[in-house]
Amino acid sequence: MKINNLNELNTPCLILDKNLLEKNCSKARKKCDEFNTILRPHVKTPKSIEVAKIALGKDVGPITVSTLEEAEYFASSGFKDITYAVCIIPAKLKRLNYIQLKYNCVIRMVIDSVIVANQIVDYSKLHSANFEILIEIDCGEGRSGLSYQDEKINEISKVFNINHYTKLLGVLAHAGHSYSTNNKKEIISISNIEREQAIASLKNFVNPKNNPPIISIGSTPTMFYAEHLKGITEVRAGIYMFWDLAQTSRGICEIDEIALTVLSSVIGHNQKKGKILIDAGALALSKDISANNFMPEAGYGLVCDPNTALPYEGLNISEVHQEHGSINIDNTSWFDKLPIGSLVRILPNHACLTCAAYSNYNILENGIIVDNWSRTNGW
Amino acid sequence: MKINNLNELNTPCLILDKNLLEKNCSKARKKCDEFNTILRPHVKTPKSIEVAKIALGKDVGPITVSTLEEAEYFASSGFKDITYAVCIIPAKLKRLNYIQLKYNCVIRMVIDSVIVANQIVDYSKLHSANFEILIEIDCGEGRSGLSYQDEKINEISKVFNINHYTKLLGVLAHAGHSYSTNNKKEIISISNIEREQAIASLKNFVNPKNNPPIISIGSTPTMFYAEHLKGITEVRAGIYMFWDLAQTSRGICEIDEIALTVLSSVIGHNQKKGKILIDAGALALSKDISANNFMPEAGYGLVCDPNTALPYEGLNISEVHQEHGSINIDNTSWFDKLPIGSLVRILPNHACLTCAAYSNYNILENGIIVDNWSRTNGW
Repeated sequence: MKINNLNELNTPCLILDKNLLEKNCSKARKKCDEFNTILRPHVKTPKSIEVAKIALGKDVGPITVSTLEEAEYFASSGFKDITYAVCIIPAKLKRLNYIQLKYNCVIRMVIDSVIVANQIVDYSKLHSANFEILIEIDCGEGRSGLSYQDEKINEISKVFNINHYTKLLGVLAHAGHSYSTNNKKEIISISNIEREQAIASLKNFVNPKNNPPIISIGSTPTMFYAEHLKGITEVRAGIYMFWDLAQTSRGICEIDEIALTVLSSVIGHNQKKGKILIDAGALALSKDISANNFMPEAGYGLVCDPNTALPYEGLNISEVHQEHGSINIDNTSWFDKLPIGSLVRILPNHACLTCAAYSNYNILENGIIVDNWSRTNGW
Repeated sequence: MKINNLNELNTPCLILDKNLLEKNCSKARKKCDEFNTILRPHVKTPKSIEVAKIALGKDVGPITVSTLEEAEYFASSGFKDITYAVCIIPAKLKRLNYIQLKYNCVIRMVIDSVIVANQIVDYSKLHSANFEILIEIDCGEGRSGLSYQDEKINEISKVFNINHYTKLLGVLAHAGHSYSTNNKKEIISISNIEREQAIASLKNFVNPKNNPPIISIGSTPTMFYAEHLKGITEVRAGIYMFWDLAQTSRGICEIDEIALTVLSSVIGHNQKKGKILIDAGALALSKDISANNFMPEAGYGLVCDPNTALPYEGLNISEVHQEHGSINIDNTSWFDKLPIGSLVRILPNHACLTCAAYSNYNILENGIIVDNWSRTNGW
């Protein structure tokens, strides 16, 4: 099928295939339904209201964000139940509280420090600010969070036991190390540990109001490969909406499920060096090459037919400069197949980073560009 | 000196030291004055009106851009003499011409193809559009451009010989491969070749109007290390305005000349793993690690005292996730020196890519944040 209006777009730009997006989102919702748990989509990947609605399958619902800028953007569009899944610091409480009050929403915050717990309590008393808190549990990634056996979990929960404005709701874990393997058994094992340690971390948790605690886990691989999610109240995942080569390279998705591509134009032929130059470089694609660990042929992205988004065999972006991408070719017939001015679509390594260079998505639906959706960026 | 109002900023954000910026820009202008040539600053680094004015030392003047978005942004602020230094394709002529007409400016375009030359002539006749053109010369980088001996230079110049609307003005070369070495002698040699081949490329150049041709060359290293620039009419360079670790690592600048840093907050202490977590990750810093070729200790950036912007010995960003940066420490005293909530400044690998995640600069002048300058992004 030929997309008749692709050539009306300025290149480089993002193309988001709505049909694939809907399929990907519906699959994740079904998975969480089967596991009898709530999906709280991580909107740090799309940073778009329209995409978040498709991820939820409804107009509003619980979401996860990675910045307060995202929190404000989504809150201003009516999202009321937001988890900010990066550890808070006291300097950010003022803005967080401002967003909560302005938009009548809740932005749950995450902590892993007794000191910060006390600072939150102090702030909440001083400003009569209502806060909801989760303790971050490190289930093996070794980034932020406390070990599930750490006695600080008990200490933190005691800090909130005596305060009226703050509610300690539960725990949050993220098995980000599930991205470091392409072995299904290992991912299953990581998923089991993520679930078990999140639940076990509650042993020393003092829950003043005796409400059932929130146990939030998630990463796209551990969600899709989970054996079960018994005891888990919600799952956070994001990249499944778009997919990308990093996920394909780890066997988590198929190449023809990737909904997000960069549309680019051929701007030059270097016949001496056997290179095709395109107008998508380091800014348009990002310098993330994380797919290459398990897919060394990915380069800075796979070069695809603009209509089908299926890779041209053997063509990748081998080098990037700020605004130039270079495709090394081993057969000069590519110069005829891809004349200067022709379009290609690029499958990105890491959609979250690639998208961040753009302010909007061009929406492809049933073989035609039908719409343009904005996204937010920055902090 | 303590910067008293740093803690009023939302982190992560960009800090631009105006005093250093002015010093860096003045040094480059002086260099071009000594060489008796014109400096045409490449604004793809700052993408900011205020920075461009400082680079020029006056309110308007000749600039180089890397996207038509930049061209439009600068044209809308009164810049009339713009070179778009990435090969044009016919699909972009409409927008280029629109900007020229709307803002009464000239956007010189660059080509390296006979076919595109003919397409430009066809377009210009059909739309009575006035275009100015330079032929790109590849002086050794092996990216875009024609070899200085390529007979296509002659063919292209003949295409424009017979057209009234288009003016072929000269040639443009960019020794981007000067970034691939930290050896001063090699850079001098590359600079000599850039100059010589740019001049030699005019041998077969047909100049219908017998005007002296434009011979535009440039990269920051080849400008500063040039032995002379006799015969060169203008120099394009950009990164010298801000500098970055990639340039420091190649010996082109000193660390205390870098004007651009990322301000970030400590958001966590992972005591088990010996890590300090900050709120500047892959988006806030970019995944460019190009300084590491010659400065393996650079990591994703060097961690600095927030007041002096001088590196803390042995501290770099060793790992990045979308919104997390990790600093591996070998001495737990860093946990005391950098408590949660404290500020650090990060020297970036590649300022052009780091800046692209932000919409503005916080301007530091004489030890205080005094202003906020916007920048453009995207295409």
